[in-house]
Amino acid sequence: MEAALEFIPGGTVTSAKGFSAGGTCAGIKKSPKNALDLGIIYSKAPCITAGMFTKNNMKSAHVLLCQKRLPSNAIRALVVNSGCANAGTGKQGINNALSMASSTAERLGIAAEEVLVASTGIIGKQLPIDSMVSAIKTIEVSPDGGHTLARAILTTDTVTKEAAIRAEGFTIGAIAKGSGMVHPDMGTLLCFLTTDANIEMDFCTRSLGQAVDISFNMVSIDGDNSPNDTALLMANGLSGKEVITGKSSQASLFQQALNEICIYIARAIASDGEGAGKLIEATVSSAASIADARAAARAITSSSLVKAAIHGNDPNWGRIVAAAGRSGAEMIEAKIDLNIGGICLLKDGCQLAYDRDKVVRLLKDSPVAIELNLNLGEAKATAWGCDLSPEYVTINSEYTT
Amino acid sequence: MEAALEFIPGGTVTSAKGFSAGGTCAGIKKSPKNALDLGIIYSKAPCITAGMFTKNNMKSAHVLLCQKRLPSNAIRALVVNSGCANAGTGKQGINNALSMASSTAERLGIAAEEVLVASTGIIGKQLPIDSMVSAIKTIEVSPDGGHTLARAILTTDTVTKEAAIRAEGFTIGAIAKGSGMVHPDMGTLLCFLTTDANIEMDFCTRSLGQAVDISFNMVSIDGDNSPNDTALLMANGLSGKEVITGKSSQASLFQQALNEICIYIARAIASDGEGAGKLIEATVSSAASIADARAAARAITSSSLVKAAIHGNDPNWGRIVAAAGRSGAEMIEAKIDLNIGGICLLKDGCQLAYDRDKVVRLLKDSPVAIELNLNLGEAKATAWGCDLSPEYVTINSEYTT
Repeated sequence: MEAALEFIPGGTVTSAKGFSAGGTCAGIKKSPKNALDLGIIYSKAPCITAGMFTKNNMKSAHVLLCQKRLPSNAIRALVVNSGCANAGTGKQGINNALSMASSTAERLGIAAEEVLVASTGIIGKQLPIDSMVSAIKTIEVSPDGGHTLARAILTTDTVTKEAAIRAEGFTIGAIAKGSGMVHPDMGTLLCFLTTDANIEMDFCTRSLGQAVDISFNMVSIDGDNSPNDTALLMANGLSGKEVITGKSSQASLFQQALNEICIYIARAIASDGEGAGKLIEATVSSAASIADARAAARAITSSSLVKAAIHGNDPNWGRIVAAAGRSGAEMIEAKIDLNIGGICLLKDGCQLAYDRDKVVRLLKDSPVAIELNLNLGEAKATAWGCDLSPEYVTINSEYTT
Repeated sequence: MEAALEFIPGGTVTSAKGFSAGGTCAGIKKSPKNALDLGIIYSKAPCITAGMFTKNNMKSAHVLLCQKRLPSNAIRALVVNSGCANAGTGKQGINNALSMASSTAERLGIAAEEVLVASTGIIGKQLPIDSMVSAIKTIEVSPDGGHTLARAILTTDTVTKEAAIRAEGFTIGAIAKGSGMVHPDMGTLLCFLTTDANIEMDFCTRSLGQAVDISFNMVSIDGDNSPNDTALLMANGLSGKEVITGKSSQASLFQQALNEICIYIARAIASDGEGAGKLIEATVSSAASIADARAAARAITSSSLVKAAIHGNDPNWGRIVAAAGRSGAEMIEAKIDLNIGGICLLKDGCQLAYDRDKVVRLLKDSPVAIELNLNLGEAKATAWGCDLSPEYVTINSEYTT
């Protein structure tokens, strides 16, 4: 099955059949000058569309709007901006989100109800809706516009997050933005997935849920989630193949492809966390339950003390075990094995005589692999995060100023 | 009632009748040279003693030992070291903790079972027990030795945390250490409370639980708790007054005194968080339930983004509301009021035209008071934390190296 999937070099959200995209500068971002901050994804055919959203009780206007419209079998477009979150903006925020949708619909010659909306950026400010409406009128979408849109959705990200994966019969493309305020549950601020696969609506919802659970929900940058976190899967069926349901022979191939592209993007988000120098990949195995494995893995990648130690190339294994201990996962100290970068530091809960200099050297390279074996059961989970650097604090002290 | 309580200037853990303490250098801490790192609290009379301990599934040897011995009506002493946590140390760790107790008992001429043990410092290293046993033999305890012990228990703390509070009929003294790995539940690494009040065992346990709940469990430095977190209340009854039970007329006065000293110490710990420049005091009021109020207040003081914004004197109110939203507390955006430093920024969920420069100026001073009114119910809770600075990361990148 593995061989049937391949990542497309230079792939992006417009790699699947029938999708086009474009972006422009609406002046929402103050710097750099003329930065892209607004864009559109457009599908030639209506899309079966599912979404996963933040669990934060403060929800941005776009999340409220999308939750109302999804799941749907009639989505044609998405309009998205960066630089302003349109969260904490009350009724005016909702009206602005509706204006974004209707302007986009007018531009594309479709109905306003066929358009989804997304925003990311500073919380608590109103969108400069007039200049955005004017800017939307000028956006040109094209089949290779995914790269432009990938740039338009970034905030403090340093690189775009784009990928596409191809299998016999369908392609899935994706773009995302991450960086700050990234934490389970909904470990990404924004991820847009598009596919030409012909999938049925129930399967669309369930497969997105499963993929998000093992990818974005296992990413932590700083322990905060945001009012805006959103993952969307738009499927336009233009592959022309038979419809895929949960029972189809193609179902597991589609799920595998979706999982792989989501994990690829999740790793890219963690690698590019604010101020991050390296990716941390923590795998907890032989846990008593999958909930325990997930909780322990996420606690390790979320711990400020673990993240700071890894920033300093410090094999401070006690902090890793303490973080797992704090997660609530069942744990018997005398059974634990711990590897860092493939080197065993703890066996049956006892520290081994390991080559400290070698581990310090390994910690200098990204990714840093942490493997904690609880030796209690059969469950396993992987979480991703990044080191904590003084730059993270600097970036986040100065964000609105 | 308020007037009946007063803090004793220069008060400490030996301020109550019959308690003495002392400390020495056992060479556990590597720097500075000759740093105090070992000490004893001794009571002339056996103490009714209760303890509250970390909820981390990784528990230090001393926590396991104390949990076995408490509650008790026959505790006479406590031996405590800094520089090494004696956690992640297996059987040898337990044996070393027992050796600490028996050496202390021998030194004081009491039974080993009458001695409690506590440790703080680096996880995963064995105690240098031989030099500790030798050092214990030299410790002199005295009625003003609390100040020495307060220094001996510090790790990355920059100042001692000491206080004593006096009421008609009894005195309560305390020392504590905090700084890193401080998070609910059990927001302090170590806090030792002593009193000459004549309290009954059940009331001792319950009153400590109540005080810890609204003080140490509401403090967060970095979101990590430790395998060592411990609060102990030792009551030797030497006030000679009538026994206080939950039903006594004195019960509420004692509870109030215990609450006040614990909150005083909790604030001191938060103010001295690693790399901290200022204390953050977040009060959530009119919440639907006390659980909601507590969760929202703690989420605000735990948020890396809020903490970094406050470090940068940035009135980024969106992060405060988003943190509360993430806590799971019931919240209706259109009902929220938010004050920073007494200035109202949000009313009924809408941003007011506030004097931004004035708020920036207020944010430069410690403490920073955040008041979030949910306008849903009657519950109220306060949490304490500190700003997040680049120094925090530097300190925690270099801790074991």
